[in-house]
Amino acid sequence: MESEQLFNRGFGRNSYNSITSASSDEELLDGAGVIMDFHTTEDDNLLDGDASPGSNYAMSNGGGGGGASSSTHLLDLLEEPIPGVGTYDDFHTIDWVREKCKDRERHRKINSKKKESAWEFTKSLYDAWSGWLVVTLTGLASALSLSLSHAAADWLNDLKEGVCLSAMWFNHEQCCWDSNETTFAERDKCPQWKTWAELILGQAEGPGSYIMNYFMFTFWALSFAFLAVSLVKVFAPYACGSGIPEIKTILSGFIIRGYLGKWTLMIKTITLVLAVASGLSLGKEGPLVHVACCCGNIFSYLFPKYSKNEAKKREVLSAASAAGVSVAFGAPIGGVLFSLEEVSYYFPLKTLWRSFFAALVAAFVLRSINPFGNSRLVLFYVEYHTPWYLFELFPFILLGVFGGLWGAFFIRANIAWCRRRKSTRFGKYPVLEVITVAAITAIVAFPNPYTRQNTSELIKELFTDCGPLESSQLCQYRSQMNGSQAYPAGSDAAATPGVYSAMWQLSLALIFKIIMTIFTFGLKVPSGLFIPSMAIGAIAGRIVGIAVEQLAYYHHDWFLFREWCEVGADCITPGLYAMVGAAACLGGVTRMTVSLVVIVFELTGGLEYIVPLMAAVMTSKWVGDAFGREGIYEAHIRLNGYPFLDAKEEFTHTTLAREVMRPRRNDLPLAVLTQDDMTLAELQNIISQTSCNGFPVIVSKESQRLVGFALRRDITIAIENARRKQEGIMLNSRVYFTQHAPTLPADSPRPLKLRSILDMSPFTVTDHTPMEIVVDIFRKLGLRQCLVTHNGILLGIITKKNILEHLEELKQHVEPLVISPSHSVCHPRCLFYQNRF
Amino acid sequence: MESEQLFNRGFGRNSYNSITSASSDEELLDGAGVIMDFHTTEDDNLLDGDASPGSNYAMSNGGGGGGASSSTHLLDLLEEPIPGVGTYDDFHTIDWVREKCKDRERHRKINSKKKESAWEFTKSLYDAWSGWLVVTLTGLASALSLSLSHAAADWLNDLKEGVCLSAMWFNHEQCCWDSNETTFAERDKCPQWKTWAELILGQAEGPGSYIMNYFMFTFWALSFAFLAVSLVKVFAPYACGSGIPEIKTILSGFIIRGYLGKWTLMIKTITLVLAVASGLSLGKEGPLVHVACCCGNIFSYLFPKYSKNEAKKREVLSAASAAGVSVAFGAPIGGVLFSLEEVSYYFPLKTLWRSFFAALVAAFVLRSINPFGNSRLVLFYVEYHTPWYLFELFPFILLGVFGGLWGAFFIRANIAWCRRRKSTRFGKYPVLEVITVAAITAIVAFPNPYTRQNTSELIKELFTDCGPLESSQLCQYRSQMNGSQAYPAGSDAAATPGVYSAMWQLSLALIFKIIMTIFTFGLKVPSGLFIPSMAIGAIAGRIVGIAVEQLAYYHHDWFLFREWCEVGADCITPGLYAMVGAAACLGGVTRMTVSLVVIVFELTGGLEYIVPLMAAVMTSKWVGDAFGREGIYEAHIRLNGYPFLDAKEEFTHTTLAREVMRPRRNDLPLAVLTQDDMTLAELQNIISQTSCNGFPVIVSKESQRLVGFALRRDITIAIENARRKQEGIMLNSRVYFTQHAPTLPADSPRPLKLRSILDMSPFTVTDHTPMEIVVDIFRKLGLRQCLVTHNGILLGIITKKNILEHLEELKQHVEPLVISPSHSVCHPRCLFYQNRF
Repeated sequence: MESEQLFNRGFGRNSYNSITSASSDEELLDGAGVIMDFHTTEDDNLLDGDASPGSNYAMSNGGGGGGASSSTHLLDLLEEPIPGVGTYDDFHTIDWVREKCKDRERHRKINSKKKESAWEFTKSLYDAWSGWLVVTLTGLASALSLSLSHAAADWLNDLKEGVCLSAMWFNHEQCCWDSNETTFAERDKCPQWKTWAELILGQAEGPGSYIMNYFMFTFWALSFAFLAVSLVKVFAPYACGSGIPEIKTILSGFIIRGYLGKWTLMIKTITLVLAVASGLSLGKEGPLVHVACCCGNIFSYLFPKYSKNEAKKREVLSAASAAGVSVAFGAPIGGVLFSLEEVSYYFPLKTLWRSFFAALVAAFVLRSINPFGNSRLVLFYVEYHTPWYLFELFPFILLGVFGGLWGAFFIRANIAWCRRRKSTRFGKYPVLEVITVAAITAIVAFPNPYTRQNTSELIKELFTDCGPLESSQLCQYRSQMNGSQAYPAGSDAAATPGVYSAMWQLSLALIFKIIMTIFTFGLKVPSGLFIPSMAIGAIAGRIVGIAVEQLAYYHHDWFLFREWCEVGADCITPGLYAMVGAAACLGGVTRMTVSLVVIVFELTGGLEYIVPLMAAVMTSKWVGDAFGREGIYEAHIRLNGYPFLDAKEEFTHTTLAREVMRPRRNDLPLAVLTQDDMTLAELQNIISQTSCNGFPVIVSKESQRLVGFALRRDITIAIENARRKQEGIMLNSRVYFTQHAPTLPADSPRPLKLRSILDMSPFTVTDHTPMEIVVDIFRKLGLRQCLVTHNGILLGIITKKNILEHLEELKQHVEPLVISPSHSVCHPRCLFYQNRF
Repeated sequence: MESEQLFNRGFGRNSYNSITSASSDEELLDGAGVIMDFHTTEDDNLLDGDASPGSNYAMSNGGGGGGASSSTHLLDLLEEPIPGVGTYDDFHTIDWVREKCKDRERHRKINSKKKESAWEFTKSLYDAWSGWLVVTLTGLASALSLSLSHAAADWLNDLKEGVCLSAMWFNHEQCCWDSNETTFAERDKCPQWKTWAELILGQAEGPGSYIMNYFMFTFWALSFAFLAVSLVKVFAPYACGSGIPEIKTILSGFIIRGYLGKWTLMIKTITLVLAVASGLSLGKEGPLVHVACCCGNIFSYLFPKYSKNEAKKREVLSAASAAGVSVAFGAPIGGVLFSLEEVSYYFPLKTLWRSFFAALVAAFVLRSINPFGNSRLVLFYVEYHTPWYLFELFPFILLGVFGGLWGAFFIRANIAWCRRRKSTRFGKYPVLEVITVAAITAIVAFPNPYTRQNTSELIKELFTDCGPLESSQLCQYRSQMNGSQAYPAGSDAAATPGVYSAMWQLSLALIFKIIMTIFTFGLKVPSGLFIPSMAIGAIAGRIVGIAVEQLAYYHHDWFLFREWCEVGADCITPGLYAMVGAAACLGGVTRMTVSLVVIVFELTGGLEYIVPLMAAVMTSKWVGDAFGREGIYEAHIRLNGYPFLDAKEEFTHTTLAREVMRPRRNDLPLAVLTQDDMTLAELQNIISQTSCNGFPVIVSKESQRLVGFALRRDITIAIENARRKQEGIMLNSRVYFTQHAPTLPADSPRPLKLRSILDMSPFTVTDHTPMEIVVDIFRKLGLRQCLVTHNGILLGIITKKNILEHLEELKQHVEPLVISPSHSVCHPRCLFYQNRF
């Protein structure tokens, strides 16, 4: 009895399968237009639980087999694990509870064997350390891929303008660095570096060379864009987009095979570089998180602890996303908080430690490689020398409002455009679309120096405070031009016409970036949002900063400025405004708060500026939330119809479980199985005539008390297995889920015991349970389905999808939008058991 | 029907009360000896949900009343909210699910009223912003209390040595600062500052003055200690200890009235200063977290959103603990992570934002006040100029091992001593104990300059790298003494005898600190562990650092040092070793990881040293965990028998719910109620003859199907209320929990409807559910009890306490230790309904 229990516990929970998204492939094909317009490459299925169909099984066999061997029942054959149980199909949701149970079972097994031999002890040590190993490897690989892509993108980007004659593989900066120690000011005048006009026409100046440069710039941009979109289309359709919405969905328990596979990794790393170099208004920081997750997923295959358990694998992915941000911005703590705040779903303390470790390893490796060339970890290292004053909070909050408005506008516009792309014929030609956008971007961008240059460079320039060595047009102040001061108070000086023309160019660049980013995010190339959003915010911030600075200069006796801004004193830092603006805009688009502030804090390394940042980011979030609570990632998740139950959103409605459960009032009754009075024919009939993914098992038709839950897939597999291995199974064989076979007439055929596939501990709630509690249970425990009872009697079932549909209905408020009525889970096509309620 | 449902949902969940810790007062009085040896002050009950007994109720009335008004049943009186329901008793556990439902109900109500009038709209705005307001106030108050206590402790500490003649209220540093700009080196030679010997004997040197100073030092130490323990004993017994174990327990949902009240706040702030000044081996950082939580709790009473909801209040407390660490160390991000990793139980993203904000406000205010006088935020600001080398990881890891060993040793020794204190007569005299420990500490500490000085000062000195201005004995290197270099390579020089004698004194100080800390933590004065642990680690680290440095100096041609440590080069930083050692020791004691690394990272502000810190802290945790997985706070929680279900510990056993549930096999059956066939007399009989806190309600004695759950307290209150308001209630009145009254004989008295107090959505699991899942559900949803069913039939109940007992049993492995058999929850003293299982 005891061993039987053990067996059923260990195995019963192993015998789940997805019920949430029955036949959901079609929907996803329909919904996730971003992805599904391409054909899927077949060999790219690394995220697939089925990769090693037998091995997964062997493990749970070990867990349960010990118990089963001592129980001497009639049909021992069936108590053995049945191959194929315990894995998931593509586009299905995992069962967190089962996965965690499986892992604890494995852990117990290893622990109990530990003392048997030195080999087993070594294995247990390996097992215990594999978590740290896999995150170390992930951190390493992320740092390497960032460094490579950074160098390649720099080179390709400069290739649009010219080429280094001394060494083809040098970018502009390295080329001139090598020749003589030119300062940044003389960066453009370096003999080894030839623009295309110089090379082809032999002249550096004049309208002809301008046109030639213009042409070559556009030509290279289009070539890179075409190459990128073609590679994505042919080799790895999943490599497009930023990847963060999908990673959020995957971390919440969804399975998308191949999304984190080796092909995606390779193609995404390559096309990322091409897409950035093509000058499109996109960044590589978001996709780098995807790349880091691919690394994490691939390395997790080296360790059975992670490869065979979908929940454990997601812990590695959480850590990988932290490592991704850690390398993308050089902000390890910010990366961990990003993973915690934005990406992860299930984030226990252990994952916190691992994420932190991964982020640190990544940061450490990055520092050793030093790809940014400033011996600093961070992408945009800035140092400000002046404090900020209280009255400056007003422009900072203004920037926050701008960020919030921009975020809300961007989300609406981008989602509308993406929806249009999916619904019209235009979306059928992704290559054409990318080339069109790239062509417009290149043609409009070239004349304006602020849009022509690399967006990261632009942000860096905008962040930087004006010092004596700064050659930027933004720093041409009169006091500096006169050369009267050794370290001119750059910020408190009258601006020259140079600054004003820079302001005009920046304003145009702002409009250009705003428009292009809307059309770029969602293209079929890897495209991140961090850099374009930050660029928009930095431009707006710098403009506001210079405006405030000039105001303070010309009106330094105003009551506001009187105390702080004496003539000659350094009182306004336009670079700080740019940084605050960048944080506000990024906050408005993604609705991150703490992680964003920490990332930017790590850029400057000073606590000094946390209050302005916090003020701007919080304002931006509040303003953005007033127009719609979703961030861009949640909006894209909803657009693509992924089954994602957002943990941030609070369920504030008053519905009860009985109003959400299926069957609804006018539906057909629920298809259920009885524990011991069905024949095989009846069972097969139910299975073939319904599309449910699982069936509740009840005591009898008369007493509708709930016994357990059996999955469709398990039943099918078990029947096939019995037919193969066990003789005398006929259509009128009795099927039973109980411990002992029911008493049968003498001439009846041998019965079929299915207890081993019965989940004896299904989650249940009563029909009176408020939906807010049900949603809480689903979120916190990671359930796929939950049975609804009334006074111990089965009433219905609630699946994750029912909840998502319900939330959608409540959001629309008008008429119920059922995501796909034809595939709603457990929609009974025919009726077998008339349940009385 | 619909309104009835609504009512029952809104109200049914409001009608819980604690079942977890029936009669647990006595146990706690027994277990929590630290606290309970003192009498409790009665007016100190700010954490008490009963503070406004009616108001809490009025709210749920509003939520449910709308539904109830439309239902026209016989006994409408009883459907009205019954005063007293929805509050908690002292030493009871809250029901997170119910509290969250209550809050959402409140939120819905305010939202629906919002558009009615401008006043209601203002109220809704106030409600929405009250969260930010309360954390702002908490941050402010925490920063103020830290600044005050810091200044006062400094002054009192210096008072032990002497007094400032120019202004009594100046401490030594301020006194000398005021006179002339003396450097740190001449700090001791300042005419205004008189030692006690100078004042009393008129001489500064000689054995007589030494003895006089010795005597005055001891005298003041004893006076401060006596004053501290007396104040604690008389006014606020809860002010003793570090408070973190209790705050962890409170945050997990336990109620300890007055623990976070105004008396505790006042007395703890005062006695904290006295205890630190008395020279005892304790710090004020842990207690500051308690003080911050008191502030948070008190401010939450300004806002009904928080004062009336125990779950929401705990969100404020989480933020407050972040603010506490933020001010204690000047590490806002570390504070948030401390709250997340170490203290909090339920930490949604919203709380993350609030915590971050509170920590920032606190840090910002602190920076404005500038109590540390270094215009830096942090307690120990250090700046190192040399990088670290890979081979140094070896001594760092060695320090980690030391930290882990110290942590494990300290926890065992301290717990053993605390247990001894509780069980022997010695513990009955807390004042005597404190004075004895203070006397020993003062007498042993005075001769050694490293133990005589303030522990914070000591740590600061140990952390600081030797520069040309450093006058410390630790920095008397030969190269510096010669004055041959302007900025001597202090660290790569031969040590003078001064350094060696300092090493001896440090070693003695290390032994002294180790011994005294064990006996000090747990005294009846506010006592933190952070500073003593860090001091021990810093001493050990500095010793190792100097040893490695001298090794590198004398053997600079070793293969290890050859590359980096050329003569004259600055290759070893002993201060860094001290910092790494401090982190390792603190990590060993508390088992914190990420938050600790981040706190120390914020001290230096450089990512550079994160890898050494991480290596040491992780080693320390692993070594410590090998000897026992509990940190000191968890150990004290277990020692005091608080009902705390640790979220960090994984449940790895294979028991099933049926093995843990009550009644056990040889117990008497569970006391249950039937839904419609009991008389009032029978009901009262059950209530009076059992000690259960709640009773499951079933359909009938024959069919044991579960209907709901009713709390003892609610039933009692409802019966009293009915007797008062409703006529015709007699002992043979029928009691029913159903929607409609059962059909009764014509002459029977009027029945009593109790449906309004029935919780219609109790949590249930099946008897086959593995305990690991049950524990998960309890942890994640914050349950107090869960009913166990088999095929829809009620089998038993599992409470939080049953789980804790079960965990304790599994830990002991020998014989089951039931924490208090006489008070086990739902232990039926007599049997009413023979349940068939």
